[in-house]
Order: sequence, then C-alpha cells, then structure tokens
Amino acid sequence: MDRSELMNLLNQMTIEEKTAQLMQLATPFYKGAKEAGEITGPLEELDINEDHVRNSGSVLGASGAENIRNIQKTYLAESRLGIPLLFMSDIVHGYKTIFPVPLAIGCSWDMQLAEESARIAAREAAVSGIHVTFAPMVDLVRDPRWGRVMESSGEDPHLNSEFARAFVKGFQGDDLGSDLERVAACVKHFAAYGAVEAGRDYNYVDLSERELRETYLPAYKAALDEGCEMVMTAFNTVDGIPASGNKRLMKELLRDEWGFNGVVISDWGAIKELIPHGVAEDEREAAYKSIMAGVDIEMMTTTYVHHLSSLVRDGVVSEEIIDEAVLRILELKHKLGLFENPFRGADPTLEKEVVLCENHRLTARKLAQKSSVLLKNENVLPLQKSQRVSLIGPFAESDDLLGPWSWLGSGEDAILLKEGLLSKISPNQLQIAKGCGVESGTKEELAYAIEAAKNSDVLLLALGERSDMSGEAGCRADIRLPQVQLELIARLKELNKPIVVVLFNGRPLDLHGIIEEADAVLEAWYPGTEGGAAIADLLYGDANPSGRLSMSFPYSVGQVPVYYNHFNTGRPKGAPDAQVRYVSQYLDIPNEPLFPFGYGLSYASFSYHNASLSTTKMTEELEVRVTVKNTGVEGEEVVQLYVRDIAGDVVRPMKELKDFKKILLRRGEEKEVSFTLSEEQLRYHHSDLSFESDPGAFVAYVGSNSRDVIELPFQLVK
Amino acid sequence: MDRSELMNLLNQMTIEEKTAQLMQLATPFYKGAKEAGEITGPLEELDINEDHVRNSGSVLGASGAENIRNIQKTYLAESRLGIPLLFMSDIVHGYKTIFPVPLAIGCSWDMQLAEESARIAAREAAVSGIHVTFAPMVDLVRDPRWGRVMESSGEDPHLNSEFARAFVKGFQGDDLGSDLERVAACVKHFAAYGAVEAGRDYNYVDLSERELRETYLPAYKAALDEGCEMVMTAFNTVDGIPASGNKRLMKELLRDEWGFNGVVISDWGAIKELIPHGVAEDEREAAYKSIMAGVDIEMMTTTYVHHLSSLVRDGVVSEEIIDEAVLRILELKHKLGLFENPFRGADPTLEKEVVLCENHRLTARKLAQKSSVLLKNENVLPLQKSQRVSLIGPFAESDDLLGPWSWLGSGEDAILLKEGLLSKISPNQLQIAKGCGVESGTKEELAYAIEAAKNSDVLLLALGERSDMSGEAGCRADIRLPQVQLELIARLKELNKPIVVVLFNGRPLDLHGIIEEADAVLEAWYPGTEGGAAIADLLYGDANPSGRLSMSFPYSVGQVPVYYNHFNTGRPKGAPDAQVRYVSQYLDIPNEPLFPFGYGLSYASFSYHNASLSTTKMTEELEVRVTVKNTGVEGEEVVQLYVRDIAGDVVRPMKELKDFKKILLRRGEEKEVSFTLSEEQLRYHHSDLSFESDPGAFVAYVGSNSRDVIELPFQLVK
Repeated sequence: MDRSELMNLLNQMTIEEKTAQLMQLATPFYKGAKEAGEITGPLEELDINEDHVRNSGSVLGASGAENIRNIQKTYLAESRLGIPLLFMSDIVHGYKTIFPVPLAIGCSWDMQLAEESARIAAREAAVSGIHVTFAPMVDLVRDPRWGRVMESSGEDPHLNSEFARAFVKGFQGDDLGSDLERVAACVKHFAAYGAVEAGRDYNYVDLSERELRETYLPAYKAALDEGCEMVMTAFNTVDGIPASGNKRLMKELLRDEWGFNGVVISDWGAIKELIPHGVAEDEREAAYKSIMAGVDIEMMTTTYVHHLSSLVRDGVVSEEIIDEAVLRILELKHKLGLFENPFRGADPTLEKEVVLCENHRLTARKLAQKSSVLLKNENVLPLQKSQRVSLIGPFAESDDLLGPWSWLGSGEDAILLKEGLLSKISPNQLQIAKGCGVESGTKEELAYAIEAAKNSDVLLLALGERSDMSGEAGCRADIRLPQVQLELIARLKELNKPIVVVLFNGRPLDLHGIIEEADAVLEAWYPGTEGGAAIADLLYGDANPSGRLSMSFPYSVGQVPVYYNHFNTGRPKGAPDAQVRYVSQYLDIPNEPLFPFGYGLSYASFSYHNASLSTTKMTEELEVRVTVKNTGVEGEEVVQLYVRDIAGDVVRPMKELKDFKKILLRRGEEKEVSFTLSEEQLRYHHSDLSFESDPGAFVAYVGSNSRDVIELPFQLVK
Repeated sequence: MDRSELMNLLNQMTIEEKTAQLMQLATPFYKGAKEAGEITGPLEELDINEDHVRNSGSVLGASGAENIRNIQKTYLAESRLGIPLLFMSDIVHGYKTIFPVPLAIGCSWDMQLAEESARIAAREAAVSGIHVTFAPMVDLVRDPRWGRVMESSGEDPHLNSEFARAFVKGFQGDDLGSDLERVAACVKHFAAYGAVEAGRDYNYVDLSERELRETYLPAYKAALDEGCEMVMTAFNTVDGIPASGNKRLMKELLRDEWGFNGVVISDWGAIKELIPHGVAEDEREAAYKSIMAGVDIEMMTTTYVHHLSSLVRDGVVSEEIIDEAVLRILELKHKLGLFENPFRGADPTLEKEVVLCENHRLTARKLAQKSSVLLKNENVLPLQKSQRVSLIGPFAESDDLLGPWSWLGSGEDAILLKEGLLSKISPNQLQIAKGCGVESGTKEELAYAIEAAKNSDVLLLALGERSDMSGEAGCRADIRLPQVQLELIARLKELNKPIVVVLFNGRPLDLHGIIEEADAVLEAWYPGTEGGAAIADLLYGDANPSGRLSMSFPYSVGQVPVYYNHFNTGRPKGAPDAQVRYVSQYLDIPNEPLFPFGYGLSYASFSYHNASLSTTKMTEELEVRVTVKNTGVEGEEVVQLYVRDIAGDVVRPMKELKDFKKILLRRGEEKEVSFTLSEEQLRYHHSDLSFESDPGAFVAYVGSNSRDVIELPFQLVK
C-alpha cells in the first residue's frame, strides 16, 4: 500500500468514519475481547453507539495474542473499509518481565541495558499483539513530591535525552514494518509535565519559553530525532494553555518548527479536561481547540466524534484538518504493516515462549543490579555468607517490588528479597520479621522484630514506600519514610548491631532518620521482577553496585527544588568575598542536597589522575582526558564530564553534564578515559531564543559525581 | 531652576563628574558625617579616591537633621558646580516610630491607616534630613520560606497594588517640592524578587512573560501610576538576566512601554553582581549592561565610575546615555527643591518634636491592632480583667517586636507585651516566665514556667521567631516554630488550662503543634513600637481583631507554594465526577492551606444575607450587593469580592480579589455593602499578551474570606 492508496482509502471515508478513526476506546467496548462486557452503560455514559465503536481507530489497554487477534478479527468482519485497529498500551518498564522503574534505570547510566530492556518489553508486548506503547516518558523533574518522578529518568536534560534515545531504539528497532517483535513508541508527556507546581500532579506549569526550550524540551526532541512515531500530550498547562489544546506548542513548535508528522494522542481524557482547566466552555470548544492544535487521537473521551463533524459542516474547521489527522493514523497503521497483516506480531505460541522467559529475566536481574545506588557503606557491605542475618521491615517478604506502571507485571512472578537471600545463605542463618507495616505497625510486630534481631550478626532492614505512594496522582508533601519505619530503625539501633538498609521507593527521599542510623544504605527503588535476586547479588558482593543518582536527594522537602545544574546567583554562599549573612542560603539547612546528582558508591575504589585538556583554547573541539584507577575489587565507574560557561548572555548553570562513560575496571587496573567536547555542546538558548555558544571562559569538570570533580579551565575562541 | 538650567548644568559637567553623580556611597565616606571615619581602607577597597566622593551624587543610609545638614554643607563647600547630594535611606515601616512589618500591615486591609503610617514615616525621616526612602517594597510572594516575605504585603496582585498606592501617597504626598515633610518613594524590587526559587533569597526566578505581567508586575505599576519617583532593581534574574542588567525589563518595559522617566537605582552592589551571576565577564561589562539597561544609580559598587568614561571614550556607550541618567538625577534633586534649599526638611528642632511623638505612637498602636489576625478563638478571648494570667515564652519580656528593616527603631522605645498587660491588670495577677528561648531552652526554664503556670486562670504564650529569622537573607527551609517552643506548649497543655498563643514572626508558619494545642491564637507578626500596648488592647477586648490574612498559611512546607488564586487543573479534587485517586492532590495532606487568604476572626459575629447582582448580563458594569449583619460586639469586617472567569484564552484563577470594603458594624447593626464591578476589572493577559476580557460565564463571590463565600454567576456580554 502506498500513499496514493492511503489517500484513496481516506477519500472513501465518511466524515463520521473519519472522526471515529480519531477516537480511542478501552478494550471492554470491543466484541471478541476477553474483557468485553455489558457496554450499554459505558456507551451511554460517553453518549456513543456501536457505530462509533465499529469505526473507531484504536484500542487502549488490550493485551494477549489470542485476545487481540479476536478483537481485530471481529472488528474487521464488521468494517466497511477494512481499516485495522491499532492496539496501544502502557508498556512502561516491561510487559510481564518487569524491569526497575525508569527512575532506577536512569541511575544505571547504562544505555545499552536500557535499550535492551525496551527491546525485551517490546518483544513481549509485540508477540502479545500490541502495536504501540505509551513510552518512553521523558519528563524532566526536579520535584520529588511529584508521584510520577519514578517514571522519569531524572533531572538532567542530557541524561534524559540519552535515555529517550535508548528507549526509542529499544522499542522500535530499525524497521517497524519488518521487525514484528518491536512496537511503535509514543514519547510523553509533551511538554514539561514534570514541572507541575508544588509537586502536585496535573497542576499548573509556568516556565519562560527559554527555560522550556533549554531544560525541558531536549529529551522529547531526542526521542523524535531517534524516530519515535508518536507523541502524547501532557495533562498540564504550558504558558497558561493545557497541552492538549495548545496550538503554539503542538502545531507551531512540534509540527511546524520540529517537523513532526507522526500521530499525536491526548493523554487519558485530556481533551475533555480543557473544560475544567477553563479554556473551553464546552465539549465543542474543547474538540475545536484540540484538533486545531494538531492532536489526532482523543483518548477515552468523545468530544471529537460528537463535534468535529458539525464543526466541519459549520465551516469552523476545514475538513482538510480532519483528513490530515486521519491520514497520519492510516500512515502509522501502514508503517506497522497492518493493512497486509492486521495481526502483526500477535502469536500465541511465541507469546508462551517469550514472555517472562529466562533470558528476559536475566536482563531484568542485570539491570536491577546496575540501577541500585549504594548511598552509604561503612565497612559493612558486602555481607559475609557466614553471617547470621535478621531481615526486618515491611519489604522483608513483600512482593510490592515492581513499582507503579507495571500493568501486567505480577508480584507472584517476582523474586522476593527473602528468596534472593536464601539463594546465598542457609535458612537457619536468616531470621525474618516484619517489624511494622509501611505506614503503621503494632507493638507486637516491633517486639517480635527486636527479638528476631538479637541473635544475628547484622540487621538488614527492608524499608520504603508502598508503590501506590508514588506513580500517577501519588504525590506526597512529606518525602520522609513514614514515622513508624523511622521508629523501627531507631529502636533496632539500640541493639548496637550493624544495620544495612535497603530502600524500596519511587522518589528521592529525605533520608534523615535513616542515613545517620544505618551503617549502609542501598537505594533499590522498585527493582522489578528479579529484584530480590539482584539485591541479594549486590548485598553479597556477587555484583558490585554501580548505580549513580540521576536525581538529587534533597536535604529536606523545604529545599525543593534542588538540582545540580542550578545557577550561581549574585551572592553565592561560600564565595571568597561572601558575607556571612547576605548570601543565598537557608538559615537552617545547607544549600546542597543530601546526595548530589551523579553520586553513588561502589565496593571498588576509584581515583582520578592526570586530568588534562588537549588545548585550553577551543575553536571546534577539544579532548578531555583523565586516568581512572581502581584500587579495590572489580567494579564499574561512571566517569562524568561537566561544563560551566563562566559568562553568558543569560545566566548559565554551575555545571552541566555533557558526557559520561561507564567503564569496568579490574582490581588494580587503570584506564585513560577521553571525551571529545565540541563547540556544539557549548550552545544554549540566548535571551532571544537563538541557540549558539559564546566565546570566552569555560570550565570543564571531570569526576565521579556532580560534586567531586577536577576543574579544567579553557577558553572558547571564535 | 527649569529644564534648560538643568541642561546647562549638565553641559558644564565633565564625564568624570557625570559618572560620579551616578554613584551612591554610604555615609561614612562623607566629611562632616557623624559616622565619618578613616576611609582610606574603604576607598582602597572600592579603588576610588576622594574626588569620586566629592563628585558623588547621593548618600546611602544617613539620618539625623544635624548630621545631614553637616554632610551637605561640607560637600557643597567643596563642590565645583554646587550640585547638592541626595540622601536616601531604608525607611520601610517607620523611621523611629516603628509600625508593624509590611506583611502585617497587609493584613489590616486598611489603606487609610497604611497611608498614614507612610506619611508619619516620611515626616520623621524628612525632618531628619532624608530625601528618598527605599520603599515601598511591593514584591508579590507565595513562598513563606523566603525571608523577605515580611517586607511584602502578601500574595495578591490587587491587594498589593492597593497598598503600593497607599504607601506611595503617604510617603510622597501631593507635591514633594512644597511639602517638606514628605520624601520621594522608591518602589522595589523590580521585578518579581518574591518569586525566588525554593524560597531562597537572591535565587533564580523563572516565569513566563504572561505570568510576570499578570501576577507580579501590577503592584509596581500601581506605585508608578501613583507617581512614585524612583525604582530599585531586584537582585534576581528575570528570564535569565539579572534585573540590574536586564535591558528588556528596564529599558524596553519600564521606560519605553510604561514611560517611566524617573531614577532607577540598583540594589546594594547589584551591578557588580552581574559578574557572579555570570552575565558579565568583568566590571566593565557589568557597567555596560547596566547603563544600557537604564539603571541610573549604582549603589555601593564602582563599576560606573571606573568604566563608563572609557566606555564613552571608546565609543561603546554614547555620552547621551550617561547624560540621560545624570539628568534624571538632577531632575529629582530639582523636584525635591534641593537646588534652592539643599537641606530641605532637615530641621533639628522639628526633629525633636516630631520623631516618636505621641500622635505617631497612637497611629502605630492603632495599626498594630488592625494588623493582628485572630486565627483561632474557642471561648477564651477576650480575657477578663479579673483573671490571673501566666505570661510565658521567649517573647514574654522580649523587645524584639519591631521586626527586620526597622533600622532606626529601638527595642528600648517599644512597649513590651508585659507592659501592655500591666496596663490592663495588676502586677499580682501576672506571672511571667520565659519557658525557653526562641531556639533552645533549659530544663530549669521549663520547670519554672510550669510552676508559674500553676496558679493562673489562663496561660498566655508569647512565641515566635527572632526577627533575624526572617528579613533579607533570612530564609528557612523549615517553617514551623522551633522544636523547643513546640515542646513548651505541649508540656503546658498538660496543665489543662486555657492557652492563648500570641505569635511574633515574619512569615506564614506551619502552625501544627500550636494550633491544636491552643484555645486561641493571635498572629501579632512584629507589631512595632506600640506592639505590647496594641496586643493587650486586643487580648482584653479594648480593641476588636479585624486583621485578615494577606497570605495563605500553608498546611506544611511540603505544600509550598500554596495561594488562593490558583487554577482548577484538568482534574480538580472534589469535583462532582472526580475519581478518588486520579485527581490533583497530595496523598498525605489537603490541597487547602491551613488558613486561607482573607481569613481572620473577630470578637463580633458577621453574617451575610441577600447577596445579589444588579444584572446577570454585564455589558459595561454591574453592582454586587450584600447585607452584612453583626450579631456580636462592635467590630470591623472586611467584605471581600472575588471573581472567576469560567473559560478563558488561558487558564484563569479559581478566584481573584477584585474589591473589598472594611466596615465597622455596631452590635446588631446591618449594612448593605455594594461593589461596582466593571468590564475593565475582568481583563487579563491573553496568550498573545493582549489585555482584554472575554465574553462568557463568570462567577462573582462575596464573603468574609477567600474560602467562605456566596456565589453569584453572571455573563459578560459584548
């Protein structure tokens, strides 16, 4: 099928068929679906009829090869023009083999494994019949209160962009038409959803256009540069207008300026939400604003099917606009090969083989090892296999290890921490006690835990947040662990035994009350299906922690937002001539986060030597070189390159990540790591939004995190 | 002297005299000053010489009629052209008669008294020789962590604008030339200083231009519309560029668009701070950017005197630019009548009569009564004069009642709370105990307080923040009272006696730990010189609390920023069709602040009846009417009018204050209050920055605070 055939098809469609093509409904509406049910109620609620369903263009949230084949078959049998359905689902960090949450993957700084995780997720989804995943989510975030922080790779434009590319590559592969084990990716949430005010989900976003372009947009752009097929709108406003009805953002920037001609889909219900947002008086106006903004598919509301036809009839919207939207959807169906093979990868046999297979689990285990971040270790890790261990805490035997948005993942398939430990030590070395629940506990639980702790050599505390304490709409104003868990550790501390804390959580936490009490703290996030195995590997030194924070851990919630790439201000604290009082500071806490961006410990010991530049006068580019030596056990180090522009047209960050390399060093090994830094990497958005570099003074920094670096000044000469 | 004479004078000036005219130095540099001292060191530090001082244009921070006369006389005796000095000082909330801090005055909603306080401050300053005050500060603020929140009148554009006008009127009067008991006002800090990120002083500010114009700029504009003579730059960046070097903000917006042709002064050192900000490589570039932005006076740094001459010689800056700046300063001197009378109002005799006179103190007492906000009262206030009272807490005998920026104010002149109480009850009815310090305490102090509490009928706790815990650079990440004070109240609570808390503080606090324990809470802020008297009046019912919060009190710091004029979002919590989970909310705290904007109790009881609109179809304007009845003791009520625009071009606030009336009602009295609401008041900044109203649905709300209101829907018809 070529473009003229698609045009031909389009020309045969009635306006009702066209507008229905723009509608996406959930699986239960479709005959043949295993979820199909009594839909009279839901149809009435949406005020649509079976004709609408019969002509709809795509399905939300279906899964299973047999199931999706049935839906497609039934649908096509009733279809006048034989246009197949698109099946889209949220495959965020795995299909049934669940990988760590994206914020954890962000801490791996491992693009190859990140890509591999997306490839596996795509494979499991594709053989199960899915065509499109609503991923990657690449919203830059600086506020840990926001629940969806766990879906993002973190606070840095460059690192987020690298992950955006890796995920898109992994989902889509090189050719969606021929590679049936891939799915189309849909980057989300365009744009700046991570900047919601006060860290409250769906809230107002306000940014200058310069800041939007400089900080928030790069990761979306990187995904599109990698060929990402679709874009999902954000729930929030951008400069006062909800993204789904924002013509300047969607039409002028995304489509006209960036040239994106793929399918744009609204987030769930987001078009109709123009009404509560207060930029549309009614559904008709919501439909009008969204279609004019260039949003093609309306998810789960029906303003398009109800109003676009009449908007066209009344001459308010030209039919061309509708045609363009429909054509983009038909083109995606064509690209996926659905006209030739409407079932695409859906293969019940392969599904049984592939989903949750041993190889996939192995990758999940490896990625979980690389995503965990060792925050503190005072001579207690790795554990010795001879030690008696008390495993205590609400996550000791919990299967809540998958994290939010692990839709089809099941805790039953997960390796629990307890099970991971039992693969290392014998049952009689392991005492287990809950100690307390996540948010509350009983005296008996606490007493039992104290008793259980007494006969062991080391206390292993498995603490954290329930997975519904983060994720969509899972915002917290208090980002400490719940009080009952702080009390648990305080009481156990009285036993004077070494304490190792493993944390399961979906956001950077204020760790006061934990970090001082514990001898070691391993941030495991939600590590996924193989979580317990991976963490046991790390605890016993069968794997060496190599994760590095991709988001700052604030000193307290009163410090939010805190991020490494901040500005100097006119009165920087700690400057040589700074006054004591009149500097930019808090009276009660430091300016610095508790743990900075890029931070993470290893069982190895890395030292940096001979840092140098190939020249201190850059014209086109220069080389940054540093020798890294490992004086400990074999391990991986993330060598990080930052740059500061000393004086710009606008204020410039104190440091910006420009490059990094994750390298493996054997005991005693040293390696020279080199980076090529180019003039292009020094460009930024000026006050007039031009994107260019300025000649003048710069500093390059190399080191093992954003705080501990070696300075290398240079000049850019033009 | 007319303009041609000023031009003539300007033409006689050398470039060095001109650039020195743009420099402002502190008093100790000047011969004849009582503060004058060994200045070789300071001169060397600034790399200037006595010629620079001899030609400088204005003096920072001098006071005292005799002193200023001496400085001026000595200066003019050595001056080649006889251009008098301008004397500028920070007279923020009083000269020596200190009024409540501006945030407290903001809670008075009393424009007449606010104006009167500025008139008195101007009078005391003017007879003491001062020409210009660096006030009003009108920075809108939504973040209580910021220390300078106490200098602002609060979170609302309309209320801040009203106060801006009242203060300018009070400082300047009708004619600065003839009224020697007034001073020129300098509105600050232009612009958006109150929006510093993370509530940390001097920090980065990022806003869309639309939000800047809609929310932050109105109060500055109101001050200028009222004729405010000067503008001070802010320390922060605006769209990436520090205000002092921000041509778009200062030149294009303030001067060209708004037509402001008065003097612009940098804040202290702010021009040189362009270097640490990172938008100037050196002092020369800082001077260049600031003069080109239209900043006339450089305060306390010397980039202008060092570099402007050579920038002119090198043809980088045209001499016209310098001339314009100098001329603006000469014109202000002329306007103040200084060429004819360089001593202006400075009058040692009048100074002795006027400063801190009984009338001024009376106004300070009245304003302190009206600025205090009664937050809670469960049948315990007003106190009975027969009761035995234990006055306990760090503010029981403290003279730290004046608050930050009360420069010449002295705690020794202040009426302490204890003294206020002793004017109501006899010494044998009053027990006094410190209980603890502001941030720490001893067991003995606590034990003594508990003992002192035992023989009384009511416990009066005077708690709060030391004044250096707010103010410039006084930012706190934790906005609760210090732990030791929370412990004090918790321990006293065990005595089961009525507890009344009076709070002295400079920011909205998280009052958990106070509000549940106390039977009554009176927010006294820093009430000024007459603080103790005013509070005693309120506690004993000799005055009736009428203050209303001009800033929301957050539920906790994790809720910041929280403000009443927020947006609905697409998924508002509590909407009729809202889901339980997928709404804009926190899991752990409410969305609502602890106390909303406009809130405050009275000993009277007001009820609202017969709210109505003159029409539900507005074309030009309509009347909003409501009858308010007082069923309690005589008292004042602030009747508030809010509006919501249901659907706009951009999202619109849930409520916006449009008008208010503070009315006195005797016991049993009822009054009809009416507001005229015009189409003009419904205008706002659209996406394209046009400022207009939209036809369609609106709601007017009348009530006693931003939460408790009566809804009155109407349509705007065009």
